[in-house]
Amino acid sequence: MEAQRIVDILRNGQLDDTATIQGWVRTKRELKNFAFMEINDGSAMANLQVVVDADFPDYEALLKRITTGTSIEVTGTLIPSQGKGQRIELKPTNLQIYGESDPETYPLQKKRHSFEFLREIGHLRARTNTLGAVFRVRNACAAAIHQFFQERDFLWVHTPLITASDCEGAGELFNVTNFDLKQVPRQENGEVDYSQDFFGKRAYLTVSGQLEAEVMAMSFKNVYTFGPTFRAENSNTSRHLAEFWMIEPEMAFCNLVGDMDLAEAFLKYIFQSVRDRCPEDMEFFNKRIDKTVLATADNIINNQFERITYTEAIELLKKAKKKFEFPVDWGVDLQSEHERYLAEELFKKPVIVCDYPKDIKAFYMRLNDDGKTVAAMDVLAPKIGEIIGGSQREERLDVLEKRIDEMGMPQEELWWYLDLRRYGTVPHAGFGLGFERLVQFMTGMGNIRDVIPFPRAPLSADF
Amino acid sequence: MEAQRIVDILRNGQLDDTATIQGWVRTKRELKNFAFMEINDGSAMANLQVVVDADFPDYEALLKRITTGTSIEVTGTLIPSQGKGQRIELKPTNLQIYGESDPETYPLQKKRHSFEFLREIGHLRARTNTLGAVFRVRNACAAAIHQFFQERDFLWVHTPLITASDCEGAGELFNVTNFDLKQVPRQENGEVDYSQDFFGKRAYLTVSGQLEAEVMAMSFKNVYTFGPTFRAENSNTSRHLAEFWMIEPEMAFCNLVGDMDLAEAFLKYIFQSVRDRCPEDMEFFNKRIDKTVLATADNIINNQFERITYTEAIELLKKAKKKFEFPVDWGVDLQSEHERYLAEELFKKPVIVCDYPKDIKAFYMRLNDDGKTVAAMDVLAPKIGEIIGGSQREERLDVLEKRIDEMGMPQEELWWYLDLRRYGTVPHAGFGLGFERLVQFMTGMGNIRDVIPFPRAPLSADF
Repeated sequence: MEAQRIVDILRNGQLDDTATIQGWVRTKRELKNFAFMEINDGSAMANLQVVVDADFPDYEALLKRITTGTSIEVTGTLIPSQGKGQRIELKPTNLQIYGESDPETYPLQKKRHSFEFLREIGHLRARTNTLGAVFRVRNACAAAIHQFFQERDFLWVHTPLITASDCEGAGELFNVTNFDLKQVPRQENGEVDYSQDFFGKRAYLTVSGQLEAEVMAMSFKNVYTFGPTFRAENSNTSRHLAEFWMIEPEMAFCNLVGDMDLAEAFLKYIFQSVRDRCPEDMEFFNKRIDKTVLATADNIINNQFERITYTEAIELLKKAKKKFEFPVDWGVDLQSEHERYLAEELFKKPVIVCDYPKDIKAFYMRLNDDGKTVAAMDVLAPKIGEIIGGSQREERLDVLEKRIDEMGMPQEELWWYLDLRRYGTVPHAGFGLGFERLVQFMTGMGNIRDVIPFPRAPLSADF
Repeated sequence: MEAQRIVDILRNGQLDDTATIQGWVRTKRELKNFAFMEINDGSAMANLQVVVDADFPDYEALLKRITTGTSIEVTGTLIPSQGKGQRIELKPTNLQIYGESDPETYPLQKKRHSFEFLREIGHLRARTNTLGAVFRVRNACAAAIHQFFQERDFLWVHTPLITASDCEGAGELFNVTNFDLKQVPRQENGEVDYSQDFFGKRAYLTVSGQLEAEVMAMSFKNVYTFGPTFRAENSNTSRHLAEFWMIEPEMAFCNLVGDMDLAEAFLKYIFQSVRDRCPEDMEFFNKRIDKTVLATADNIINNQFERITYTEAIELLKKAKKKFEFPVDWGVDLQSEHERYLAEELFKKPVIVCDYPKDIKAFYMRLNDDGKTVAAMDVLAPKIGEIIGGSQREERLDVLEKRIDEMGMPQEELWWYLDLRRYGTVPHAGFGLGFERLVQFMTGMGNIRDVIPFPRAPLSADF
């Protein structure tokens, strides 16, 4: 008989139904005349309880082989549970053990393990309650992102991972090379001879797919990326990864207001969708990890986001009856403490700040008529600060060229990007957000390495 | 008024409706008293025709600025079209030009361009009929893949791109490094000192997420990857990319039959879904690129796949009244000509070949009881040959260890992979397929570089 998912049995299983489950034993307790086992198959945090009577064939031999981590298939009948905490349990008629799990060496015993320890056994940690819930939420979040954009007719575009352009994020780039590092070819002047490398020039791992997404938006109007990006930043923090996934929508014929509208609709949709799809997991995070995650989710879902300019934000911060570590003055970038004050304390809901000083923003952001600010926007959320950053892009060729020169960037490398302004240019806008930051925000997990299956960070590329 | 998508207007627009469109001019023709323009917004291959009468305000000045590539917004009324090939057209009441497009230099003129030429202008090529259709089909295909797995409760898992393991694909790996290649640190013995690199050891770009997907399947039962993979293979063919996307489902408590069932259901679902979502684009490919693509799609959708063993396949090939370039004998790998003979000529439908000799397959495939073959399977399709490769994985610790030793691989690097067999091991199976190969197959495009927005290949990493 085909196995059912435990989550479906727990939700919809009827008394006296026959059911087969397959999964891993989480715990076993032996009493005098019977034994309990909790079985988990990853479909939900909750286990299905199996109660084996002592008169079950081969009872003692079987029970000896069943320990935490054992893989098992059980067929039986659903009966009312005598115990607390569950409506039904499974009384087996057939029980097959697939693989044992030596209790002397199996690292996941029934006790609390630190997240640091669990990272060392990254190949087993998804079998714990917390990491199991994280990766179910991660999947629900990822699926909701595709659904959001596909429903709105955005094309998913795959921008390149390997790039020869270092126009963004210089200094934080990983090199990609086919050279034997013991004998890197040199030119006569001693410089590395990249013409002999795989791509015939120096190549890196990308830090953003935005410029290429703009290319695609200039053909299809609305597109989005959802793919890996990289930062060779040597910072061992709880908020940074060397390899992470990003989402970057880009819309042609769109200005900053349209961009803010999309960002707001996006966050509301994703949070609602995960709330609906993973209610038990979200309850768990709220109870065990961070008691504010459900309130924060509801805050995002139910409130119209506040929208203020950077200049207004600076005024509000100056008026604040609060001592900030970093001083506030027009022209400085907002620090996390400022962002959190605005969202958490002042407005008590998400805030979109727009029109930042051009000097603290990227070259491609559209210059406003005041000549001092650009059409950028950041979405600030309570508890986390900046969650989304976006902008209207500079679509005017002459303004963009001037800005590239001002910043000392090489125009010739951006010839194709400039071509987009040369031939049928249109106002366009987009934003970016880090997927792991979003999952971290949603679950309240303290360390970003615990929301991605196999984290990459300085000195850390295990599994 | 908010702009509508041209595809929606062409499908559902009613006479006398008011409509606004935004897009790029594909062609313009001026007659004596009026002018035609074809506008495309990327939502469909078809354009919407706009007819401007000579008495339109500023007619002559406007028309001068409108050339191929110009970006434009038009509001008007839908009227019956006098011309052939379309039901309706737009009679403008308002017309705004966003960006001009100098006809002297715009590379995309109204003529046929070679795909080779279009690759040189990768930032503009999606504005052509063929590449536009490719990228719409690519998106539909990608969306269908997620839908297929999400409907079946598979979790999308993100396996790492940067890896320190070279257990698969040695020799075809890209190095990822943070070293300054002009001064790579050395150990005393002259070897590269990778302990000083970003990850503290030698790191590569992954060639497959399978081993890590197995980790996740051992917690969640059914998972899939859909992400980029890399090959530093110096082969400049029409079927190879240095960077491409792969799909790799993995199922716990599953054998080779379940794996074949999933592969067959997967292909049928994806082809049907793209047929339904992109009928015009698929018609176009069938007409202009490869006259067999619709028949091939229908063949896949409508036929039960033939299933034979490798040993049976060898017998059938030996009996074939056909001269093969590569001789057929038990133990040799099947060549493309053999695969195509089986699928195209003999069975005239997809064929799944299973139970290959162990010596031509990977270390992780499950040894069959005969001791000579492994539980591997390849799906062969007419016109293309192998499209999917999969296997049941070796879940028995002792057998797997022996196999790793036989192949001279380092057990210590695979400690975590072996742990999966040590603690609660279960029969499990999965397969992999290259996403670009699938899109190439589906569209009939001759060169794989034309089904990915920004192809990476030897000496080629533009844009």
